[in-house]
Amino acid sequence: MIKVAVNGYGTIGKRVADAIKQQNDMELVGVSKTRPSYEAMIAIRKGYPLFVPHQSEDEFEKRGIKVAGDINALFEKADIIVDATPGGIGVKYKEQYSKLGKKAIFQGGEKANVADISFSALCNYDEGIDKKYIRVVSCNTTGLLRVLCTINGLAGLERVRATIVRRGADPKETGKGPINSLDLDPVTQPSHHAADVKTVLKDLDIYTTAIIAPTTLMHMHSLEVRTKRDVTKEEVLDTLRNTSRIVVIPLTAEIEGTAEILEVTRDLGRIRGDLYEVAVFEGSIDVRQNLINLVYAVHQESIVVPENIDAIRASMGYKDSKELTDRNLGIMRGELL
Amino acid sequence: MIKVAVNGYGTIGKRVADAIKQQNDMELVGVSKTRPSYEAMIAIRKGYPLFVPHQSEDEFEKRGIKVAGDINALFEKADIIVDATPGGIGVKYKEQYSKLGKKAIFQGGEKANVADISFSALCNYDEGIDKKYIRVVSCNTTGLLRVLCTINGLAGLERVRATIVRRGADPKETGKGPINSLDLDPVTQPSHHAADVKTVLKDLDIYTTAIIAPTTLMHMHSLEVRTKRDVTKEEVLDTLRNTSRIVVIPLTAEIEGTAEILEVTRDLGRIRGDLYEVAVFEGSIDVRQNLINLVYAVHQESIVVPENIDAIRASMGYKDSKELTDRNLGIMRGELL
Repeated sequence: MIKVAVNGYGTIGKRVADAIKQQNDMELVGVSKTRPSYEAMIAIRKGYPLFVPHQSEDEFEKRGIKVAGDINALFEKADIIVDATPGGIGVKYKEQYSKLGKKAIFQGGEKANVADISFSALCNYDEGIDKKYIRVVSCNTTGLLRVLCTINGLAGLERVRATIVRRGADPKETGKGPINSLDLDPVTQPSHHAADVKTVLKDLDIYTTAIIAPTTLMHMHSLEVRTKRDVTKEEVLDTLRNTSRIVVIPLTAEIEGTAEILEVTRDLGRIRGDLYEVAVFEGSIDVRQNLINLVYAVHQESIVVPENIDAIRASMGYKDSKELTDRNLGIMRGELL
Repeated sequence: MIKVAVNGYGTIGKRVADAIKQQNDMELVGVSKTRPSYEAMIAIRKGYPLFVPHQSEDEFEKRGIKVAGDINALFEKADIIVDATPGGIGVKYKEQYSKLGKKAIFQGGEKANVADISFSALCNYDEGIDKKYIRVVSCNTTGLLRVLCTINGLAGLERVRATIVRRGADPKETGKGPINSLDLDPVTQPSHHAADVKTVLKDLDIYTTAIIAPTTLMHMHSLEVRTKRDVTKEEVLDTLRNTSRIVVIPLTAEIEGTAEILEVTRDLGRIRGDLYEVAVFEGSIDVRQNLINLVYAVHQESIVVPENIDAIRASMGYKDSKELTDRNLGIMRGELL
């Protein structure tokens, strides 16, 4: 039984905590939260032991939120800590993890040098085995890497050009915009995603542009890949359909965008309406000799959840994880519908 | 066993179909869909017999969507039909239901005279018993009536003034706006909601204004009620907390709006992130003698689902339904968290 602590119970942390509860070989020893908000109340309702910063127990208890102990006690209980604190905060906690001799999984909001390796399960699971510190790349980079490593396996990658249309904020982030603008992210391109992809696919020729759009639902990636050998559309479609964590949205489903994709996940009863899989629009797949164009959507809140579960097992020395994770989380392959 | 058909498998129909499957005394004999879209594919995936308009079977079958028969065959199988077709279409189907001698439940998008009575379970369940045709009032009217009948029971209603801030479209309705405007709905006020409330609370002095806002999540109602006798804030809070299908959002949860409410329903694992309950903001409740002000949110996609289930039982002659419906659907009372 791998004892796992989740530090930070926000968008990623609460999903990873729920996913840990779905694994037979893991025990969730607790979660942490710094503020006594509704998310802390939900952790309690789910029966997750809640740990809070030193000397802030009173603030929680006086709102009727039962506290299990302070954060340090949480870390001590764990074999490994999933750091799901906000970007840039994980590196500050690393010192504590290190002092206690604990392994840790960081998120893509941290710089790559926070960990021994940057990790994307379909690309480099084996490199993660026995590593003390692993960084799961961000949602956009996870989406890019799943698709790129899949195409790399089919025909080799010569050059990649991607335009990322990013969601402005998560559904719950009501203080964040834009509500009526398309913004360059950042104003000096390329975006950081190209460099982030190269933390895993080190020598790839890739250029990325990122634009923020006023939506909370998903990201959308417009991708052009020049492959080393010529391929056919059927090969590309078959490969995507046979890759776990990627689903193809069939043209017959008449789905045109992210709102309808998430309507399907709601209808299917997925928890929180989450979509762990990259969703590729069949109608967008255009193949001409060695030039593949396609568009896919990335659910920013949940896509990294299976990768976090895999990263835990890799760090703990397990040779295999992906199939187990897929089965436990009910991950699809083939077609969305 | 009550045999129920659901005519129209869209926003309301698919939720009512799922809710029927959760009732031990009902059998879903099938659902209908006019277009072979992803929602039709989902009905099939859920194992619901799918009926389609006469002579359109081929259109579905050639997309691999298995059809159980034409719509008339669906109606024949049922004791009662829940009409969840788009507003104004139900009345056209009524002739077919009537010819076959079938009972029917209509939605609030139809005019009140489509049915024998307009129905809101907390207000007039008993009036629905044995009625052949029942119209469940719209989402906004259901929200208003749940709160108003509850306050009526506490202290009597003297006068009601409500401003309804409506969502522009449902999440899946990507062709509908506004995306950047506040619109009067309609430009000549009052809105139709006052008259619709009066189809149930016949002599009420009520004035309603409606404004459409660019959001897909929920409606919000700002309500002022002048009661017949003076009340205290504690009485109002206690009454709301002790009424089924109403929940109070505690101030301590730090929830300020609809996005965070639905983040909670997602976290709690509610199917589709639905909230059947009216959610009243504790911090908005202001009581001065016989003047109650409060603000609450209404989940437009799902609030009428329990009322549809109750309407089925009422029409079939059952004396009780509400508690059974609440238990089967996991409906909350008290506080949201």
